[in-house]
Amino acid sequence: ASKGKKKATGTRGGDSLRTARPPLPHPNLSAGDRRGARPPPPGGLPLLLAMALQGKKLINNPDDVVTEFIEGLVETYPGLQYLDGFPEIKVVLRADAVGGAYDKVAVISGGGSGHEPAHAGFVGPGMLTAAVSGDVFASPPVDSILAAIRAVTGTMGCLLIIKNYTGDRLNFGLAAEQAKSEGYKIEMVIVGDDCALPPPRGIAGRRGLAGTILVHKVAGAAADAGLSLADVAAEAKHASEAVGTMGVALSVCTLPGQVTSDRLGPEQIELGLGIHGEPGAAVVELQTVDVVVEHVLKQILSQETQYLPITRGSNAVLLINGLGATPVMELMIAARKAVPELQLEYGIAVDRVYTGTFMTSLDMAGLSITIMRSDENILQRLDAPTKAPAWPVGSEGNRPPAKFPVAVPPSPSMKDDEILSERQELSKQGCMLEAAIEAAAKELIDLKDNLNDWDSKVGDGDCGTTMYRGATAILEDMKTRYHLNDAAGTVNEIGSTIRKVMGGTSGIL
Amino acid sequence: ASKGKKKATGTRGGDSLRTARPPLPHPNLSAGDRRGARPPPPGGLPLLLAMALQGKKLINNPDDVVTEFIEGLVETYPGLQYLDGFPEIKVVLRADAVGGAYDKVAVISGGGSGHEPAHAGFVGPGMLTAAVSGDVFASPPVDSILAAIRAVTGTMGCLLIIKNYTGDRLNFGLAAEQAKSEGYKIEMVIVGDDCALPPPRGIAGRRGLAGTILVHKVAGAAADAGLSLADVAAEAKHASEAVGTMGVALSVCTLPGQVTSDRLGPEQIELGLGIHGEPGAAVVELQTVDVVVEHVLKQILSQETQYLPITRGSNAVLLINGLGATPVMELMIAARKAVPELQLEYGIAVDRVYTGTFMTSLDMAGLSITIMRSDENILQRLDAPTKAPAWPVGSEGNRPPAKFPVAVPPSPSMKDDEILSERQELSKQGCMLEAAIEAAAKELIDLKDNLNDWDSKVGDGDCGTTMYRGATAILEDMKTRYHLNDAAGTVNEIGSTIRKVMGGTSGIL
Repeated sequence: ASKGKKKATGTRGGDSLRTARPPLPHPNLSAGDRRGARPPPPGGLPLLLAMALQGKKLINNPDDVVTEFIEGLVETYPGLQYLDGFPEIKVVLRADAVGGAYDKVAVISGGGSGHEPAHAGFVGPGMLTAAVSGDVFASPPVDSILAAIRAVTGTMGCLLIIKNYTGDRLNFGLAAEQAKSEGYKIEMVIVGDDCALPPPRGIAGRRGLAGTILVHKVAGAAADAGLSLADVAAEAKHASEAVGTMGVALSVCTLPGQVTSDRLGPEQIELGLGIHGEPGAAVVELQTVDVVVEHVLKQILSQETQYLPITRGSNAVLLINGLGATPVMELMIAARKAVPELQLEYGIAVDRVYTGTFMTSLDMAGLSITIMRSDENILQRLDAPTKAPAWPVGSEGNRPPAKFPVAVPPSPSMKDDEILSERQELSKQGCMLEAAIEAAAKELIDLKDNLNDWDSKVGDGDCGTTMYRGATAILEDMKTRYHLNDAAGTVNEIGSTIRKVMGGTSGIL
Repeated sequence: ASKGKKKATGTRGGDSLRTARPPLPHPNLSAGDRRGARPPPPGGLPLLLAMALQGKKLINNPDDVVTEFIEGLVETYPGLQYLDGFPEIKVVLRADAVGGAYDKVAVISGGGSGHEPAHAGFVGPGMLTAAVSGDVFASPPVDSILAAIRAVTGTMGCLLIIKNYTGDRLNFGLAAEQAKSEGYKIEMVIVGDDCALPPPRGIAGRRGLAGTILVHKVAGAAADAGLSLADVAAEAKHASEAVGTMGVALSVCTLPGQVTSDRLGPEQIELGLGIHGEPGAAVVELQTVDVVVEHVLKQILSQETQYLPITRGSNAVLLINGLGATPVMELMIAARKAVPELQLEYGIAVDRVYTGTFMTSLDMAGLSITIMRSDENILQRLDAPTKAPAWPVGSEGNRPPAKFPVAVPPSPSMKDDEILSERQELSKQGCMLEAAIEAAAKELIDLKDNLNDWDSKVGDGDCGTTMYRGATAILEDMKTRYHLNDAAGTVNEIGSTIRKVMGGTSGIL
């Protein structure tokens, strides 16, 4: 084999990645299949566009994604196990709650897959006892739900927490009836926290979204505290009635083995989407995240729909949930806006903030915001310790009403920050130096895009931006800080400016 | 305002999202800026392609992403604080370790931003005492590192853990010298865990990647146990010499405010990439994740390069790290392959598995794999409790050498699983029923793609796949399980097949 560009380095003839073995049949990898699945768009660019829209995934056979996810999950977490019933029965359960001897109320949830880490990632002491997975975006069949109930339910009984979808209600409902006929004590709580659709769709139409995770936590902690089935169910129901969610997507999700939909334009976002790729309530133009967060909170807290029993003076917890392909940075930026917005605009005290990835929609980019009215009991349940891997660490405990940053410790030498006390009279040499610095800085500012472009060929493409930042700061400091009549001093002062703002390798050099 | 398609539902004239306020100046939102930043590609499709390649982000001003991330982080976690030095000084620290009275060794890390949750998400008791953030992909300036050192270092001193990049080495190194001259006890450990580049690049060229997180944990736990600065530094150095990492990307990352690079083709993946968008060691065709994991492990454990002191019979821990936009499902599928591959192919006992998002590259899709040789002491440090929000829960404790799934509990009625004991002699009616079922099932199988297509218009696009699964199982069960001579019985038996395999709403209906 040749040492061409397409070969993996470090491999030798015969074992390169490309030829290691014949690729598995992947419906999403072959241009022929792609063209077969959707008609080429009109015009002269079908192939290129179809390629740009294709969903790349790190998977094997698309039919195996759920069972392989579960196998990886139990490899990662020693405390989790699964039932030996693949491919039909896909149940993750606490390794220590198997055998029918479980002495607390079992809490079981589940639904279609594609929402990882939900639901299996929330199995653990203090949260779910078992999670039942269906295929991607499909409710699990009755027999698999029954298997989960039989595996973990003891004499205290079992609470089923179900997201409000027809398939889940039917399958979990039928499984509950069957389990009751076998002598199990079963209660069900249905969560419909969607706030995106206007009231004509009514309560029946409210889908279960990320708010379900908070209901899991409340119920799991109540069960762990030894409460009876009736009391655990009552707490879960109370929590489910106090929670509302709405999402916003930058991209739609791609099912394993299928092509990506081009529903969403390149400068559009979707509001009030479903977590199964259902079209959202509205498509709007891309805006800053601050505007998006304002809008979503307004919709959730609308006094017109009154989805939530929350008014000025209420307490609440906030959950910012990534939809699968959203960087942590963007989730935190949304949290930064949502907390003061709730406190200052709506008069709601924010007791806890959970920012992370909880209930996804495969590889969708975007986030959802969940608000749950809180009280002493709910906070106690949310703060209770759990070993469920996907429940966040570090959000528990009381937050200060406002957080003031810590003062920067003083430097032993304050010279760097000295400001010239009066406008200096420049010598001829000082004027020339000023003009030269100004010209050099402006040249760097003009070169910003070119430098970025060149840098992106060999590095991370930020050289121009770094230079721009330094040049701008020098122009600013020159007027107020530099002793321009002293050329040597000025060079040191330029160094100090650079050290302060530029960072990166170029700065220090 | 009209109720056009572009308006958000539930809003009234004057307050729709689109017109809520004039959009902030966003270099990445305007077609004019985009065309200015890179020349239009040749041919007739510049705009459409430029749009497809543009990076959508949920941010405000691209210049503010790091400070706004930090503000959101401290809103989320009550135990974290930041220094009041924005925009130059971007330091996150333990709220309880401020004021110079900290009585253990302070452990500080940091570097360019864009790797969230690293490094600030790993600040907490038992891990980092403070994290210093630079701008996106740019090392933090000396003064900000100094501010972090001064803020949290007590009499026990401070360990700086630095990823092996020129900028970080220079800035942290200079800050360390300055701090020493102010009387602080400082040690530095440099992590270069990259295994992608062949040995000619040498140790000097090995970049710091996700393995750094494991070094943070070892050092943080050692410091928390009360060890001296010399001992904490020795443990961190020992860990840094036993760790190797290599990544694979499906997409490159997009810097805030910039356009997405088209470096990676639609059916290509990049191996051995840098976490700052540096081109990888090789571009190869998209393969199944199993093949990719095999290749990456081979490279990390190469006996030729001997990057790691790991041989057959060694113990190790495994870290599967998402690069920013990788769904949990795909990370777990990779973990599922990596564990048995290490154990069976390389004879390495896998002591712990950490699967999640630790050290990202903005919105890059893909993952990296890290292997660290483990021993009793390292395992004790990794298992030690920490409140750092981004360190995973549930991976601690001994794993069984192999995990056997739990048997499905028996059903009180086993009728569903009965298999016909002998080939049945079909009546004329039985033959007709068989032909009718076969025709109906095959029709459904043929309709799979059309049904999926229609379903994707109103739902999640899986109706055809669900029907296909049911029809296939019916064809299978018919020969072995159905009493075809009894039409009513056969209908029940079809119901039982569907209940077993189909799930979803269509199954139960």
